[in-house]
Amino acid sequence: MSTSHAIRHIRITPIAFRDPPLLNAAGIHEPWALRSIIEIETASGLVGINESYGDQPMLDALAKAAPALVGLSPWALNEMEQRVAALVAPPVQTASEFLGQQVSLAPGTHVSKTVAKVVSAFEVAMLDLQGQMANAPVVDLLGGAARSSVPFSAYLFYKYAEHAGQPYAPDAWGEALTPQQLVAQAQRMIGQYGFQSIKLKAGALPPDEEAAGILAMAEAFPGLPLRIDPNANWTVETSLRIVERLRGVLEYYEDPAPGLDGMAAVARACEVPLATNMVVTDFAEFRRNAEMGCPVKIVLSDHHYWGGLRATQRLSTLCRTFDLGLSMHSNSHLGISLVAMTHLCASVPLLTYACDTHYPWQDEEVIEGGRLQFEAGSLRVPTTPGLGVRLDRNALARLHDNYLHCGIRNRDDLGQMRKYDPSFDGKQPRF
Amino acid sequence: MSTSHAIRHIRITPIAFRDPPLLNAAGIHEPWALRSIIEIETASGLVGINESYGDQPMLDALAKAAPALVGLSPWALNEMEQRVAALVAPPVQTASEFLGQQVSLAPGTHVSKTVAKVVSAFEVAMLDLQGQMANAPVVDLLGGAARSSVPFSAYLFYKYAEHAGQPYAPDAWGEALTPQQLVAQAQRMIGQYGFQSIKLKAGALPPDEEAAGILAMAEAFPGLPLRIDPNANWTVETSLRIVERLRGVLEYYEDPAPGLDGMAAVARACEVPLATNMVVTDFAEFRRNAEMGCPVKIVLSDHHYWGGLRATQRLSTLCRTFDLGLSMHSNSHLGISLVAMTHLCASVPLLTYACDTHYPWQDEEVIEGGRLQFEAGSLRVPTTPGLGVRLDRNALARLHDNYLHCGIRNRDDLGQMRKYDPSFDGKQPRF
Repeated sequence: MSTSHAIRHIRITPIAFRDPPLLNAAGIHEPWALRSIIEIETASGLVGINESYGDQPMLDALAKAAPALVGLSPWALNEMEQRVAALVAPPVQTASEFLGQQVSLAPGTHVSKTVAKVVSAFEVAMLDLQGQMANAPVVDLLGGAARSSVPFSAYLFYKYAEHAGQPYAPDAWGEALTPQQLVAQAQRMIGQYGFQSIKLKAGALPPDEEAAGILAMAEAFPGLPLRIDPNANWTVETSLRIVERLRGVLEYYEDPAPGLDGMAAVARACEVPLATNMVVTDFAEFRRNAEMGCPVKIVLSDHHYWGGLRATQRLSTLCRTFDLGLSMHSNSHLGISLVAMTHLCASVPLLTYACDTHYPWQDEEVIEGGRLQFEAGSLRVPTTPGLGVRLDRNALARLHDNYLHCGIRNRDDLGQMRKYDPSFDGKQPRF
Repeated sequence: MSTSHAIRHIRITPIAFRDPPLLNAAGIHEPWALRSIIEIETASGLVGINESYGDQPMLDALAKAAPALVGLSPWALNEMEQRVAALVAPPVQTASEFLGQQVSLAPGTHVSKTVAKVVSAFEVAMLDLQGQMANAPVVDLLGGAARSSVPFSAYLFYKYAEHAGQPYAPDAWGEALTPQQLVAQAQRMIGQYGFQSIKLKAGALPPDEEAAGILAMAEAFPGLPLRIDPNANWTVETSLRIVERLRGVLEYYEDPAPGLDGMAAVARACEVPLATNMVVTDFAEFRRNAEMGCPVKIVLSDHHYWGGLRATQRLSTLCRTFDLGLSMHSNSHLGISLVAMTHLCASVPLLTYACDTHYPWQDEEVIEGGRLQFEAGSLRVPTTPGLGVRLDRNALARLHDNYLHCGIRNRDDLGQMRKYDPSFDGKQPRF
């Protein structure tokens, strides 16, 4: 075995795992969620790992960029970023074109994010390698832990009991379409994980039904911070009407109305701080929000599309400079993403909100030892070198096999919804 | 020897070294410049070093904060920051008080910077330790080198031939009070170091004489980027009159007029981009500049008062977000500060301007091997573990002895100037 830690090989393995029929503004989750597993191997035989998006354009970008890493030191993050940008940067746009683009439900899928997404995918795996080389957990490479555990919130969804076409046995969570069913879901999730705050994914049912869901939660869990996220599926008028119904109940109000202009209109007439993962999704949009006097007060970051763990730390400095709060966004993911978030959040003093995670909705895992364990809604920050988790190669093979057989190559919540309701047109804002 | 890398001891050694009689807006340099040398030792016997300010309030703050480090891991930068802030934070000020404060010639001396300055002093020494532990140069801990060498500029000063009172033999540079003498100074400095850009410290002689100095330089060094820095010693009217005389000659215009409002008034009528190390000296001031539409276009950073190498990297992200440029400010310093700047600048892709350094004005050194060597005006980024420089203990003892005998405890360019001109009142802007 060589003693050189130069990168000699990169493996990208697409995987798919079961995902429940969760409702949202765009439609409904498909039966299989896609991710990619990144492995970066050094000449010395170390392997750094990471987890990222698994849609076809992302897999293409990862494949295009991966050869640029060969020969690099795992420390050479800046050079990696430069090489990746040179290989996968989208055509140059003017600032106004860039700022005028529609922001989608899942910012991680937007082409303007390709460089940031690929950089993040490689950065975390290289940090995992650095930690192994330096005998230090990733959190130490990020300045050390400002807290020893990281709190997450209970992420509730309206959902059907099972998927159209019944591709596999129904999940254990059952249907949630009423306030009572939602409270039961929250009780089950909080009982199992100990979460101490609640987020409701909204924008799926008529807004007054969703408001009733939040009010039922406020009654069932007095004192717990509550959040609602309609994913910009409400008009400004609806947003203001509903927040009035929820007066005194919300910790923050996430993406009620479309666009930064829509959010600004809500902010002008609403005392609850607005949060977003839709209109401040990169540094250019951060600037636009600042130049508008910060109608959005809380940025929900996501290292997968902000450009990595270090970029998210830098975002925290921007947030502190402009007196904004910081929380974390989530897509369907497994344990590598969760542990990367945990290292990151432990290193960011500003991150005082409990983070979003879809983790309770998954029942599969790709890491050794299986599912990560929460304590009172929090995850302990690993203290072993690197990320502190390792790939379970049997699980990886099984999840890759899922990918090969599931037939899904790009997330399509709209198309999936049409299997239940052929008239569903996905027009936004719907309410 | 213990195998634990926990910090067990901190040594702060004040030093003084010869400094020439350099003229500036505040007055003139005293015969001795003060610095502090920081050594952080682990239980395992590793020693991380750094260099920072050496005035009495800074020595007091370092002494007050040092015990907080004992027992910490060298990786625990976030916890170090929290502990330092708890010990040395100044009384809480409102944002308006904070923003309304006068900014001095040397932002590093301001009390509002105490936490950032102490954090920086310890951070670099802890990064030096991290590098030794991880067998990696500091630049690698900062994301790796985006360039293999870092360019600096020739930093010219008007000066007298020798100090009042002749405390030691005159320096080798001679008098510089005319355009011809200034060109001779530049030729000597560029011949010796190979610098490829020139900065003139102005605000000392009548502005038209200084403009003549720049024009003489433009003739003597065609094509070399030129900068002038009157340290806010000119009115807005004078600033605009002089920049008109220098039309087509300046790369950037550094701190011509006082205050952000003064700079904004200059910016409205001036095509040359404005740079500053006086009105954007921390993140709160960065925000104020952004909210005013960015009259200042280039921030001259300085890791010594911005909170360290990582804080300066974060500043670079803010600059990129708001389309600002980044360059580096300097005070009188020795090789440890210079090599820390070199690691930092190599890791910041945005830092495309040659950095300021006073280094050519010093003829003493505190590191093993003596004075650092420039190649074509640039310094190579060290590739050995940590900062890549070590203390010369004999030199440290000699420089500490200078400190004990020099009688200076706080920088006082104004008082020193009165030794030459008892009527000098230091009123600003003077011209």
